[in-house]
Amino acid sequence: MAASALLKSRVRRPSYLKKLAQPEDLIEHFPNGAYIGWSGFTGVGYPKKVPTALAEHVEKNGLQGKLKYNLFVGASSGSETENRWARNNMIERRAPHQVGKDIARGINNGNIQFFDKHLSMFPQDLMYGFYTKHKANDKLDVAIVEATSINEEGGLILGASVGASPEIIQMAEKVIVEVNTASPSLEGLHDITMTDLPPRRKPYLIMSPEDRIGTSYLPIDPEKVIAIVESDYPDKTQPNAPEDDTSRAIAANLIEFLKHEVQHGRLPENLLPLQSGIGNIANAVVGGLASGGANFKNLKVWTEVLQDSFLDLFDSGNLDFATATSIRFSPDGFQRFYKAYKDYAPKLLLRSQQVSNSPEIIRRLGVIGMNTPVEVDIYAHANSTCVMGSRMLNGLGGSADFLRNAKYSIMHTPSTRPTKTDPHGISCIVPMCTHVDQTEHDLDMIVTEQGFADVRGMSPRERAREIIKKCAHPEYRLILQDYFDKAEFECLRKGWGHEPHLLWNAFDMHKHLNDHGSMKLPTWG
Amino acid sequence: MAASALLKSRVRRPSYLKKLAQPEDLIEHFPNGAYIGWSGFTGVGYPKKVPTALAEHVEKNGLQGKLKYNLFVGASSGSETENRWARNNMIERRAPHQVGKDIARGINNGNIQFFDKHLSMFPQDLMYGFYTKHKANDKLDVAIVEATSINEEGGLILGASVGASPEIIQMAEKVIVEVNTASPSLEGLHDITMTDLPPRRKPYLIMSPEDRIGTSYLPIDPEKVIAIVESDYPDKTQPNAPEDDTSRAIAANLIEFLKHEVQHGRLPENLLPLQSGIGNIANAVVGGLASGGANFKNLKVWTEVLQDSFLDLFDSGNLDFATATSIRFSPDGFQRFYKAYKDYAPKLLLRSQQVSNSPEIIRRLGVIGMNTPVEVDIYAHANSTCVMGSRMLNGLGGSADFLRNAKYSIMHTPSTRPTKTDPHGISCIVPMCTHVDQTEHDLDMIVTEQGFADVRGMSPRERAREIIKKCAHPEYRLILQDYFDKAEFECLRKGWGHEPHLLWNAFDMHKHLNDHGSMKLPTWG
Repeated sequence: MAASALLKSRVRRPSYLKKLAQPEDLIEHFPNGAYIGWSGFTGVGYPKKVPTALAEHVEKNGLQGKLKYNLFVGASSGSETENRWARNNMIERRAPHQVGKDIARGINNGNIQFFDKHLSMFPQDLMYGFYTKHKANDKLDVAIVEATSINEEGGLILGASVGASPEIIQMAEKVIVEVNTASPSLEGLHDITMTDLPPRRKPYLIMSPEDRIGTSYLPIDPEKVIAIVESDYPDKTQPNAPEDDTSRAIAANLIEFLKHEVQHGRLPENLLPLQSGIGNIANAVVGGLASGGANFKNLKVWTEVLQDSFLDLFDSGNLDFATATSIRFSPDGFQRFYKAYKDYAPKLLLRSQQVSNSPEIIRRLGVIGMNTPVEVDIYAHANSTCVMGSRMLNGLGGSADFLRNAKYSIMHTPSTRPTKTDPHGISCIVPMCTHVDQTEHDLDMIVTEQGFADVRGMSPRERAREIIKKCAHPEYRLILQDYFDKAEFECLRKGWGHEPHLLWNAFDMHKHLNDHGSMKLPTWG
Repeated sequence: MAASALLKSRVRRPSYLKKLAQPEDLIEHFPNGAYIGWSGFTGVGYPKKVPTALAEHVEKNGLQGKLKYNLFVGASSGSETENRWARNNMIERRAPHQVGKDIARGINNGNIQFFDKHLSMFPQDLMYGFYTKHKANDKLDVAIVEATSINEEGGLILGASVGASPEIIQMAEKVIVEVNTASPSLEGLHDITMTDLPPRRKPYLIMSPEDRIGTSYLPIDPEKVIAIVESDYPDKTQPNAPEDDTSRAIAANLIEFLKHEVQHGRLPENLLPLQSGIGNIANAVVGGLASGGANFKNLKVWTEVLQDSFLDLFDSGNLDFATATSIRFSPDGFQRFYKAYKDYAPKLLLRSQQVSNSPEIIRRLGVIGMNTPVEVDIYAHANSTCVMGSRMLNGLGGSADFLRNAKYSIMHTPSTRPTKTDPHGISCIVPMCTHVDQTEHDLDMIVTEQGFADVRGMSPRERAREIIKKCAHPEYRLILQDYFDKAEFECLRKGWGHEPHLLWNAFDMHKHLNDHGSMKLPTWG
């Protein structure tokens, strides 16, 4: 088939154009049970045409539940592709992170075998053959990777994310490249490193967020490329979650703390590289830094994902450089980004998730890590994944990559969330987390709209008092204090009092929520 | 006072000999509430004379509870010094790890504010000023460090451990050096690195266990040294825990797994650097590698602590190199070590705990990490610290430094432990851990004497089936399976089934243990 002029301008290696294919002609490469890798991270840079053609093939031929795949993507991919696969019962196994109603339903009704893994570790374990150990050859059968252009050597210029694409390509027997001509070519925006295995692995020689250690393209063995497909629509992203009074109050508390640390000489005046998660609190924090009040200058960012608020931070003049594995802007954000691309691009670098989330680099740089949990307990453990200990939300993501290695490990959360019957029906501060993803050994600070608890160097009993006093919502303070007082009394009496718990009552607030729609437990045990 | 000839031979910087002091003359440097750092790690290389003089001062003058200190040591120190301080109520605050009946009692009866922290992170957080943030000057008031000799520049040649001594000295206003003339000088055995703070921190350029990146001595500002004390008895260590049938069966299962990984090309024939914890299972594993049966050659070790069994592994000819932050041999082991010092020393290197336990290096080298927990749950979380969620044993130690970053993250444990009334009264496999230190996102393998569960790439429900089947003791298999079946049924029905739990019953086995001396629960809920 003939290539369009636009596609020709994007594919600088002529031999690849001979492999041009229509997505519906590639179905044969996807037998039932295949191990598949996709590019993509947080809903950008994911393949669009081939996954859609496979979904159509299944729908047309009534193959729901008969063509099922083991699907590996750096993090979440396009909601219109992955959720359609989930609706069609095309996903047997999925790792390490996902976003979308249909895929979450499949995971929580037992249909999809999902496991979540540290996003820094997932590509590495993939390379070790840990996820393909039941196969004869330890490889992924086929990878579908989106590029915005291809250079003379056949290397891929990626799009708005890097994610696990380097390792997925290293592990794949066949690669299909979707060249997206609806997005601009982002050549120069990436710093790509491949993964060596021990004992031949080398240090990441990055000493500052702007350091380049790789190539601008993803190298690939051209013989692995079995097809090139032109893709004709951009990433379908959603608007970012808006700030509200609560998230602004949390951000104000956090910024107050950072100022305090600068005053006491524990942070330089331009802070240290910032990591910020996704969501409205993260937006409010970055928004707070962009506004005049915070007055931090020459900031740098070392993070996993950039949201729209970072564009504001660039525009404020206070942000010198930012690096991540993905830019997940809203449709408006992307417009704004492409419009002033020449201004933004020199201050921005996208890396693989193994590098953006690398414990080695996060610890070396002394990153300030900030994340939002499901719940935090009075001893400073946090649950980032499973509601009521059981129901998976999106997955661990990079939360523990950062919070375990950051200089400042900060959890920010509203002190309560609403239920149908009570605007404060759920306390995000609980006696014991129903699932633990971040341990007491990791967290330095808990921040809510009520205040912040600085638990560095505190024993568990000191932490509990501080978190209840500073972070819990007033409607829950006495309930939590009552739990702690009873637990402390009981456990000290028995000589078990390091971290006092009433084990048989630790989840009574959750039970009350389950039975009565609110965590406002009248009495303990 | 006059220095002995022996002491003179050990102190090559003459000006230090002018600072020679008796320990009882140094009491004034230890006012109530002082922040103190000691050298030492796992009961070797700790200061002996000054802590003993302080204890005698308190005992003689009835100052129990009136002279209390904030005490920071890399890990556990000498049981005869630290426990005596605990008995005298001289410890206000302690971090990050301890061993001993009296100090554990003080922690669990609420008398000592203890917090445990990743051993790699403790020295770094100390340098950040996180543990001294309530003080005017962010410093440790005084450090007591044991050395085996002192070089011309005044640098300290340490003993059988490095631990956190580099950072403790960097943070201390005054330093007292105990020169131990009862131990040989271990010059050449250490590779010492100091800690820079971000944004000036550099990579650790270690690509193999034998790589040297530091100095053979601990550099120190001579003006900080306020006194030199001669110390005249060696580290008081205990015999190592002996192997038994259970630990040998666990070791056999583990070695079978490693052979399987070599066969499938996921490990080189000489494996990758090994990390092994403390205790009889660790001894049996290392013993198993030393015996002819395992047949692994040219092994290397990257670990936190070396026990006697590593001497056997050296003697077997199968171990090429070992590095750690401490050699905690038994009294017999030390005799054996010093006797053949010329043979062992070239194959051995001691580093700071920040380096031995560095996530950066552990991940780069692809370490095989092995540890023993209190309990493991059916979804592969592990409790390393708090019995019944509350009672502190020793602390987290380096378990999470290794298990979070190793290529192979392995937990080995007997499937049961005895109670007073039942030889299998405690199942080490439980529905839900009462305290979580290692998460499901970290562990690859659970090994008991019953078998091993390889949970790589498995969803939580798959993991539960595998762990119950392969690792649980036969007397608990049905009880655990019953919990899982009920939880799965209930949670899938509600659309919460990713990681099924019966939250209100999750600790029923622990409750039954508490009430009846055994976890053999007759029925669930």
